[in-house]
Amino acid sequence: MPLANAFSANHYRDTLLNHVLPFWEKYGPDAEHGGIITSLDHDGSVLDTDKSVWFQGRAGWMFATLHQTVSLNPAWAAIARSCCDFSRTHCHSPNGKMWFTVTREGAPLRMRRYVFSESFAAISYAANATLSGDSSLREHAIAAYSTYLRYSFKPNVMEPKFTETRPSKGIGPHMINIVTAQELRLHLGDITINERTLSDWIRWSIDTIESDFFKPDLGALMETVAPDGSVIDHADGRTLNPGHAIECAWFLMHEGRLRNETRWIQIGCSILDMMWERGWDKEHGGLLYFTDLRGLPVQEYWQDMKFWWPHCEAIIASLLAWKLTGLDRYARMLETVHDWSFAHFPDPEHGEWFGYLHRDGTVAQRAKGNLFKGPFHLPRMLWFCMNELQGTQTAIEPSSHSIPQ
Amino acid sequence: MPLANAFSANHYRDTLLNHVLPFWEKYGPDAEHGGIITSLDHDGSVLDTDKSVWFQGRAGWMFATLHQTVSLNPAWAAIARSCCDFSRTHCHSPNGKMWFTVTREGAPLRMRRYVFSESFAAISYAANATLSGDSSLREHAIAAYSTYLRYSFKPNVMEPKFTETRPSKGIGPHMINIVTAQELRLHLGDITINERTLSDWIRWSIDTIESDFFKPDLGALMETVAPDGSVIDHADGRTLNPGHAIECAWFLMHEGRLRNETRWIQIGCSILDMMWERGWDKEHGGLLYFTDLRGLPVQEYWQDMKFWWPHCEAIIASLLAWKLTGLDRYARMLETVHDWSFAHFPDPEHGEWFGYLHRDGTVAQRAKGNLFKGPFHLPRMLWFCMNELQGTQTAIEPSSHSIPQ
Repeated sequence: MPLANAFSANHYRDTLLNHVLPFWEKYGPDAEHGGIITSLDHDGSVLDTDKSVWFQGRAGWMFATLHQTVSLNPAWAAIARSCCDFSRTHCHSPNGKMWFTVTREGAPLRMRRYVFSESFAAISYAANATLSGDSSLREHAIAAYSTYLRYSFKPNVMEPKFTETRPSKGIGPHMINIVTAQELRLHLGDITINERTLSDWIRWSIDTIESDFFKPDLGALMETVAPDGSVIDHADGRTLNPGHAIECAWFLMHEGRLRNETRWIQIGCSILDMMWERGWDKEHGGLLYFTDLRGLPVQEYWQDMKFWWPHCEAIIASLLAWKLTGLDRYARMLETVHDWSFAHFPDPEHGEWFGYLHRDGTVAQRAKGNLFKGPFHLPRMLWFCMNELQGTQTAIEPSSHSIPQ
Repeated sequence: MPLANAFSANHYRDTLLNHVLPFWEKYGPDAEHGGIITSLDHDGSVLDTDKSVWFQGRAGWMFATLHQTVSLNPAWAAIARSCCDFSRTHCHSPNGKMWFTVTREGAPLRMRRYVFSESFAAISYAANATLSGDSSLREHAIAAYSTYLRYSFKPNVMEPKFTETRPSKGIGPHMINIVTAQELRLHLGDITINERTLSDWIRWSIDTIESDFFKPDLGALMETVAPDGSVIDHADGRTLNPGHAIECAWFLMHEGRLRNETRWIQIGCSILDMMWERGWDKEHGGLLYFTDLRGLPVQEYWQDMKFWWPHCEAIIASLLAWKLTGLDRYARMLETVHDWSFAHFPDPEHGEWFGYLHRDGTVAQRAKGNLFKGPFHLPRMLWFCMNELQGTQTAIEPSSHSIPQ
């Protein structure tokens, strides 16, 4: 069945171009030192000048992508280049590993064990290589991704958080590997990095997720498992993140569509079904942040808050699932999460979305950005949905992949 | 003015003995492996068998203290000894620094940079030295405190979290130093450890708090400042923790009373006044967890939740302030926080308090314990207030220290 009229490319495009990007274009760029400041209050005033290294990469990628795929807007290109330059100049430590935060001027503040700064820098460098034609950026993208792979997957490189008493592994490095390799492949071609092609790195992470994290018998995609994929029945091991799992679901559907791997689309749809069932709050609406595999209380006391980004991911995943399967339940799911999100997150006064709501949907914290929230999940969702619905004024018909009901 | 009738020793004693301790006595002790399990659901069922090293120390201290000061209950002595033995046997790494979590059997899971495991073990070893007469426990208490001092205050011993771009220091190590040294002095006498007497360590930390963290001109007790005590006007530097500051307030009042240092009582009362004004939620009641020095949004999105422990600390602080000054405003403050707390936190069905409420006072997470919540803040508050009000059936008259209104 077709989608309701609200689900037009125009709606997402209008929100992106008139309600979200203007906020970041106006308040984010640092005209003096370059790069972007994301710790902004509801009205765009600066809460903290310290810079998120994640966001130099994420914004560098987002604005370069918008410039290349939406319109050749010089302002977007300038933001992309500025973030990319700031990353290259200020965000790498002497050994190449990247900082987590730096001062406005670019002096290092904090290093973390993990390497998501590197993955976000890699996609920024790759998209900006295409945008600028500067081939040295290709090499920077490859180097950043190579560092990401080494720290994430080579044993004993990343400093351990726990002893060897109960070894575990997380799904995060695999998810980010998929989406990072997808973007690098788009810009650099399916090249070989650290002994695998980008497509093979993606297949390897999808296979690992399927074999070790995907538990159809338990109706869950796990966040953390033992090295052999078995469930760790302790608080950390049982903690599920429905929004994160649903993000993973659309990464798999997207790759399945690109490579005509129906199996990956099916797994993506299964993950979406399972985690929607676990995460959607039947009392107040919205997606709960954490849930427990066995329905027990989650150790993180703020587990029932409603964050903006899981909702963005669920909008993408349900739209993609509907387009790929034509199943009515995904149209209903999309309507449900779209309506709740657009009813609760937007700030009609200053634009952008609030990021953090109480379980009941009231705003818990009015800031528009911080080290973790900036121009990424929301504009990515709006851009993605706009593209998926492109060329239709009001409604489209899905294609039909064979998915079990 | 006298307190209202509700504020009797009997009320606190009854809550302690009939509504709080029975929960922990029944569900906490690990009969098989010793020590205490604190990750318990609302009804006492086990959520996670992993053991909090903090709580082996905290419970070891709490039950030993109850045994020595409330009644010679063999069950309490047994819990105290078991926690103390478990700490000694399983919770120290080969170099003496303690783990943060261990398995039920005592195998190490996680080490953290900081040394609060050591401070809580120190007070447990000290109280159990008194309880058991085992002098080797005195030595263990001294060794644990000595480790605490070295990591907390000797430059370059603790692994840094940030680069040297913007050095900072926290109030936490000083607050915990005060209360740890107070308990050690009570059990071991005013001995010299790491070149200072315990009383001198307390004075040094109080002086540091006064000179570097206490900002009467800004109306705040800071959590984090630059090494010279100046305010760091960034998100982390501006973040205030009213409950934590109010806990610090009563540590100072308590020490001021013991040593007849009126100045410390006055500073404690000032901190209580300032941070009550900043932290008390005029819309919903209860103490906000974090606030910002300049009233800006706090980066931690769950900043407006109501936790049990800041309320326990505020009950102690306001009772002590009232006893020491006789000022009416502290009686009103005590009534306000006592009434809100007893109206929102207790679980009438299974006993104990819920730990984590939404801003509006509804329960966000039903578990009774985890790695950070167990038999400590709540029973400590009930025990402390019961002692302060002892010997009166209904109401007492405060003594009068000269405190500016």
